[in-house]
Amino acid sequence: MASKKSKAHLPTLSALQVEEAVRAALLEDLGLAGDVTSDATIPAKAKAVAQMNSREDGIIAGLALAKSAFQQFDPKTKFKTFVRDGDRVKPGQKIAQVEGRARSVLGGERVALNYLCHLSGIATYTNQFAERIAHTKAVVCCTRKTIPGLRAFEKYAVKCGGGSNHRYGLDDAILIKDNHIAVAGGVREAIEAARAFAGHLIKIEVEVDTLEQLKEALKAGPDVVMLDNMGPDQLREGVAIVDGAIPIEASGNVNIDTIQAIAESGVDMISTSKITMSAPTLDIGLDINIS
Amino acid sequence: MASKKSKAHLPTLSALQVEEAVRAALLEDLGLAGDVTSDATIPAKAKAVAQMNSREDGIIAGLALAKSAFQQFDPKTKFKTFVRDGDRVKPGQKIAQVEGRARSVLGGERVALNYLCHLSGIATYTNQFAERIAHTKAVVCCTRKTIPGLRAFEKYAVKCGGGSNHRYGLDDAILIKDNHIAVAGGVREAIEAARAFAGHLIKIEVEVDTLEQLKEALKAGPDVVMLDNMGPDQLREGVAIVDGAIPIEASGNVNIDTIQAIAESGVDMISTSKITMSAPTLDIGLDINIS
Amino acid sequence: MASKKSKAHLPTLSALQVEEAVRAALLEDLGLAGDVTSDATIPAKAKAVAQMNSREDGIIAGLALAKSAFQQFDPKTKFKTFVRDGDRVKPGQKIAQVEGRARSVLGGERVALNYLCHLSGIATYTNQFAERIAHTKAVVCCTRKTIPGLRAFEKYAVKCGGGSNHRYGLDDAILIKDNHIAVAGGVREAIEAARAFAGHLIKIEVEVDTLEQLKEALKAGPDVVMLDNMGPDQLREGVAIVDGAIPIEASGNVNIDTIQAIAESGVDMISTSKITMSAPTLDIGLDINIS
Amino acid sequence: MASKKSKAHLPTLSALQVEEAVRAALLEDLGLAGDVTSDATIPAKAKAVAQMNSREDGIIAGLALAKSAFQQFDPKTKFKTFVRDGDRVKPGQKIAQVEGRARSVLGGERVALNYLCHLSGIATYTNQFAERIAHTKAVVCCTRKTIPGLRAFEKYAVKCGGGSNHRYGLDDAILIKDNHIAVAGGVREAIEAARAFAGHLIKIEVEVDTLEQLKEALKAGPDVVMLDNMGPDQLREGVAIVDGAIPIEASGNVNIDTIQAIAESGVDMISTSKITMSAPTLDIGLDINIS
Amino acid sequence: MASKKSKAHLPTLSALQVEEAVRAALLEDLGLAGDVTSDATIPAKAKAVAQMNSREDGIIAGLALAKSAFQQFDPKTKFKTFVRDGDRVKPGQKIAQVEGRARSVLGGERVALNYLCHLSGIATYTNQFAERIAHTKAVVCCTRKTIPGLRAFEKYAVKCGGGSNHRYGLDDAILIKDNHIAVAGGVREAIEAARAFAGHLIKIEVEVDTLEQLKEALKAGPDVVMLDNMGPDQLREGVAIVDGAIPIEASGNVNIDTIQAIAESGVDMISTSKITMSAPTLDIGLDINIS
Amino acid sequence: MASKKSKAHLPTLSALQVEEAVRAALLEDLGLAGDVTSDATIPAKAKAVAQMNSREDGIIAGLALAKSAFQQFDPKTKFKTFVRDGDRVKPGQKIAQVEGRARSVLGGERVALNYLCHLSGIATYTNQFAERIAHTKAVVCCTRKTIPGLRAFEKYAVKCGGGSNHRYGLDDAILIKDNHIAVAGGVREAIEAARAFAGHLIKIEVEVDTLEQLKEALKAGPDVVMLDNMGPDQLREGVAIVDGAIPIEASGNVNIDTIQAIAESGVDMISTSKITMSAPTLDIGLDINIS
Repeated sequence: MASKKSKAHLPTLSALQVEEAVRAALLEDLGLAGDVTSDATIPAKAKAVAQMNSREDGIIAGLALAKSAFQQFDPKTKFKTFVRDGDRVKPGQKIAQVEGRARSVLGGERVALNYLCHLSGIATYTNQFAERIAHTKAVVCCTRKTIPGLRAFEKYAVKCGGGSNHRYGLDDAILIKDNHIAVAGGVREAIEAARAFAGHLIKIEVEVDTLEQLKEALKAGPDVVMLDNMGPDQLREGVAIVDGAIPIEASGNVNIDTIQAIAESGVDMISTSKITMSAPTLDIGLDINIS
Repeated sequence: MASKKSKAHLPTLSALQVEEAVRAALLEDLGLAGDVTSDATIPAKAKAVAQMNSREDGIIAGLALAKSAFQQFDPKTKFKTFVRDGDRVKPGQKIAQVEGRARSVLGGERVALNYLCHLSGIATYTNQFAERIAHTKAVVCCTRKTIPGLRAFEKYAVKCGGGSNHRYGLDDAILIKDNHIAVAGGVREAIEAARAFAGHLIKIEVEVDTLEQLKEALKAGPDVVMLDNMGPDQLREGVAIVDGAIPIEASGNVNIDTIQAIAESGVDMISTSKITMSAPTLDIGLDINIS
Repeated sequence: MASKKSKAHLPTLSALQVEEAVRAALLEDLGLAGDVTSDATIPAKAKAVAQMNSREDGIIAGLALAKSAFQQFDPKTKFKTFVRDGDRVKPGQKIAQVEGRARSVLGGERVALNYLCHLSGIATYTNQFAERIAHTKAVVCCTRKTIPGLRAFEKYAVKCGGGSNHRYGLDDAILIKDNHIAVAGGVREAIEAARAFAGHLIKIEVEVDTLEQLKEALKAGPDVVMLDNMGPDQLREGVAIVDGAIPIEASGNVNIDTIQAIAESGVDMISTSKITMSAPTLDIGLDINIS
Repeated sequence: MASKKSKAHLPTLSALQVEEAVRAALLEDLGLAGDVTSDATIPAKAKAVAQMNSREDGIIAGLALAKSAFQQFDPKTKFKTFVRDGDRVKPGQKIAQVEGRARSVLGGERVALNYLCHLSGIATYTNQFAERIAHTKAVVCCTRKTIPGLRAFEKYAVKCGGGSNHRYGLDDAILIKDNHIAVAGGVREAIEAARAFAGHLIKIEVEVDTLEQLKEALKAGPDVVMLDNMGPDQLREGVAIVDGAIPIEASGNVNIDTIQAIAESGVDMISTSKITMSAPTLDIGLDINIS
Repeated sequence: MASKKSKAHLPTLSALQVEEAVRAALLEDLGLAGDVTSDATIPAKAKAVAQMNSREDGIIAGLALAKSAFQQFDPKTKFKTFVRDGDRVKPGQKIAQVEGRARSVLGGERVALNYLCHLSGIATYTNQFAERIAHTKAVVCCTRKTIPGLRAFEKYAVKCGGGSNHRYGLDDAILIKDNHIAVAGGVREAIEAARAFAGHLIKIEVEVDTLEQLKEALKAGPDVVMLDNMGPDQLREGVAIVDGAIPIEASGNVNIDTIQAIAESGVDMISTSKITMSAPTLDIGLDINIS
Repeated sequence: MASKKSKAHLPTLSALQVEEAVRAALLEDLGLAGDVTSDATIPAKAKAVAQMNSREDGIIAGLALAKSAFQQFDPKTKFKTFVRDGDRVKPGQKIAQVEGRARSVLGGERVALNYLCHLSGIATYTNQFAERIAHTKAVVCCTRKTIPGLRAFEKYAVKCGGGSNHRYGLDDAILIKDNHIAVAGGVREAIEAARAFAGHLIKIEVEVDTLEQLKEALKAGPDVVMLDNMGPDQLREGVAIVDGAIPIEASGNVNIDTIQAIAESGVDMISTSKITMSAPTLDIGLDINIS
């Protein structure tokens, strides 16, 4: 299970997704009139060399988006990196160098940094959660609580920070919650309905609120179980009941202060929206020299 | 200037922008296969009534996006609000009621809440900044540091929280920074180049780092001046130098702890990326009853 | 396992997906100039009532797309159905009635029928496969071999015909094939790499070509195993080896003549591209009366 | 008229259309998470060389789409062809070679093959129809019955197979059918209305069901006449009546068994949806070596 | 041929095309921040009634686009017309009435008028050309010289003004010009190549510069001939040579002063880019009362 | 103020905007079938060299769009310019040279010229206005009356012709007109509402119809004032009243004959829709040699 926790290698961000997202972001920033300040004050031929430096301790995520911002603005802009996604940086550490027409460096700067600072913020915050539980077998994982439009990138950033991913959407796994159970007529009935309905490559997770429900759920053979809103003691009991049969996810009341006790209960995954929806940005700056 | 600080009325979110953004967010969440869990466990005819309740103190922003999520998923879903954007809510306070097919309520839930929690988080955090400076004439305002794709909505959320807006993009105002000044050959030269270039409806703001630069800048007649990275004492001197001729914006090292002293220096606007890029989400839940 | 094979209930086609696809199809058919024939010969006020009738035995799939074609062309067009997706129809049986402006009925006709005939063709062909194996526990399922742009709809049509679905894309399940195994250094190594990499809600299927590979694979604990290109005897041996531990998928050389023997080997799923890529269209016509 | 039947040269597929279609297809296959299997098991630096081989006799169509799939996934992937669209291939014949990063070859494979197999299937099936009538002057042509979203490509594939194209949409030619005639008050009235309405570069075809209607239609001077649902004898009479004045299209009950007799009646074109809507896929495989 | 010249009835603008174009135009005008002036000064509940009045003599075209602008901005806005596309209006004549929220009337105004004034300008200018040749059998027609993105609408406006349409694009008819002839090896060769290549529903027009070329072209049997850059005398000779065999289009040096002499030569169509690319806007205003 | 009138340097057209617009224009022209004429008559390997020549006196605008048309159609096409946007050309003067596959030169020609002729027409017409007022301090400027979809490009063309730009949309400046004043309860009230509402980087312009209104408006301190529909004498009085305090814009009844007298009144800007909505196209041709 240790291999599960090592940052191993990261998934690939699709170049097509990166290009589409960054293009939209550039058009959002440019409006109809473009960068009027640089057009007014910077000659078309002026060149710039810029250093992208971290101003805080953190974990980097999203370099491909930053690169794409500069290069879609102007394909002649060069972007060279000194770290890779998932790497830890210190204050003052050089992350990347951008070189090209001054107007192009200034024109792509904000979109590049908005992506990089936001995603690195998620990676960094995720990593803080991950470090609190490094001595346990548990991994922290994100949820579907992500900023609309950025899900693929935010889930990638979570992996950069040493976390793991939950479902990507409503479509790729079954997660049976209290409402589904209530309508289906019971945990067992819900799981059976799910199994009869879903293809053979869809996992079924069931959320339970009590240990009684957990026992009932286990009889129906879900692939994963989520223990929702249980304290450490109750979680420990739950872990004992499951006894290694299937992976256990804990959720509810997870934050940077509570995660250690939750992890020490012996669960496998701890999911929280905090790492995607409440991560402070990582402060990264671009220091530009124009000639 | 007090009228400036009262929350007055809010801008209108364009229905076209809301529809486009929410549609993309729904498609992101649905993938190709849609909500397999509800399809498996909830009968097509089951009905649901759900209450959207706040679980924290905060300021609401983004109800139109939440409504659109439910109604684009299924136009027959009813969405009734009990508060308006910009309203303060308490833990447990009912924000909205959703009524319709159970699958539709569950299918739109996550996108609705992702928007509402994120934007209300921004409004709430902005408001905390605003309250610290309520006794001064200063207003807190956002920057172009926003999550890509959400700028219009995040700037709206800032206004819901009692803040003000800076430029929306590179295109709608001129902001002359150190690099522009360096290339143009001086503050005065940069401002003159900007004035010669821009149309008569574009404002020109110039960023200065020292009081000397401020004095030079004032001679060229910018519309707004930004005092960057100055401490309260230096800001106070700057305010005295400007002497009411034009509005003054302070920026740099702004956070919830420093903003009061900055505001008390007498500046007009205080800009910070914190309120958009580092606002924790507001915890809002949807309590669903299915029949 | 019988419940698995009953057509139970169908998944929901997302209204947003239907709308987007049909809109593009209408624009493809209209070009810039629109329906010049009807514009030339049919008065704007002429009304039409049209019956959509099957001209063959078959299974219907895609009524929502047909409806959307008429209603996006002209929201005032009424579309009333007499059967539901998944229903069996006979030659001459009335499927739906369309009523509205004659130009609107004619304008939406082709797109409506192109979707309905294609998807019903898939449902019908899938059903022919399914009937050959109705006496076994096996289900026929589709693959990622689908017409580009129609995957969600074609997979839905397969379910309408009594088949089951495999992965929807590269993203929602892991399918380890010979190349992955070769690079990873063995079946076991590949499965372990997959488990270490993937989130806890991603199933892992491994494709094996020999019974030796199957035995090795089972040791690494995949969620599903695919026996590729094996004859009925070898499949039977494979079924014995797996002994109910995990579901077994058979693939390779599957067609309407071979599927029965494959199914009788005791496998759980039989996957084939035939049902999506080689299904003949179902002949459905629209008989129009204009007044 | 022989020149009409030689495959002459093929039309050009617009690179813009190819790029847009393939991009959408790749995003459909990648979902949000991308190719999780290859990400998990194939190192980023692994290289692959792959042969695209036919496994059946057939006619190739769509190489540009296959190439675009690999190159949009990763612009560094090399794609070299050994045959051209319209060429006949035998089982085992090498069609193309793909070379690049292993992840890129695997990532583009399915979209490339889905297009190529589908379009080559159409070309191959069209060619089977064409061969049945090679000794006559007739050509087989497609209709507007095409898979939504693929019309331009499917019509191109028909030409690759030696067929000809009918209208591309509702907009580029007038096709007067029974309903138009009924509303217009007669064949002659409909043709005159069409002529008065349409620009001088729009052809007018009229569909007739009887020889009486044919005679009436000819008086109004259409550009083309379609004899619908007539048997060979009636067609022969129709051909005699038209006597070379305008081209004659036969339609209705056209299939691989009936087309010869229809063609021998002396008509010029024989249109059928079979070649686009019911063409079995051509089996083409990609044999990959990863190093 | 008189029927050809009466304005008969107009083609239908596809609602889908109108919606897409107008949506993009509204987003262009709204930017990210929307109508800041009305948001600032007009209460959300204020109502408006507005009259759309012509300020010049002209022909109206594009009412559907104007209506869509108001109704996409706000579906509750009512739009009532007093004239129809193709109608002649006088200065001061009421064209339409808009009623709804004041902000919605003001928000949709500019896009509505930009479309309506531009397209009515084209209709009006076309009509001036048409009136000069009303006593002849000739019709004025547009070309592919249209403002990018507006071709369908501009061609429609030409019909509203009493003109006719040429090709809609490169795809719907063959127009053989000097370059094609030069490469093909002669007029006859070019026409034969076109006939061998094109489907049976594509018309072939050939452009000739001299009467010798005309004679050669006629032998190859084109569907239409274009006499390019010939004076009235030469045109008259050309008309005599063709002798009614096929329609004749004149082009080159066509303007409001030359068109009469060209038409009196006996040609059938006279094509000019003037009516689309150089038509002055029609002055239409919106008089608003807010309560 | 002279620097304001020199053509100084031009703004940058965003490559992303150019690419998106031109791509849509090419697809509009190509339809589904592409350039059937060239496909039929020009061999795939034929090469062409073409000269883009002006046929009139004028000012060039839009070369980037023309280049993009050829290069998006076929990236191998070379496009070399001999003048720059904003340059004056004479009849016969060579503007650019295009070199590449003959089909590619012919395929991109129309879109390239449609943009270039339209935008150069605007630049040329703007320049004629500008020359009439060259001896005054006034500049001619455009409005929001632009062809939908082309605003960014048309405003750019106005600058190429020596004009200036007004607002780009409803969002980037406040323009208070009679309706806003009426609802707000007076000029002063409207300006105050605007100031309280808008961010500090938004300029406020107010339109006044009388000198009384002007005086009242000045008390509220707008950034710019527009004198609407005033004759030269009244404008002169207005100029005296304002006395240099803020810039003055004149509008209403502006045309090529009236603009001189308006300018001589001493106003700063003169706005008119004529230069964007009624500019005749500039006649530019492409002379092609194919080998």
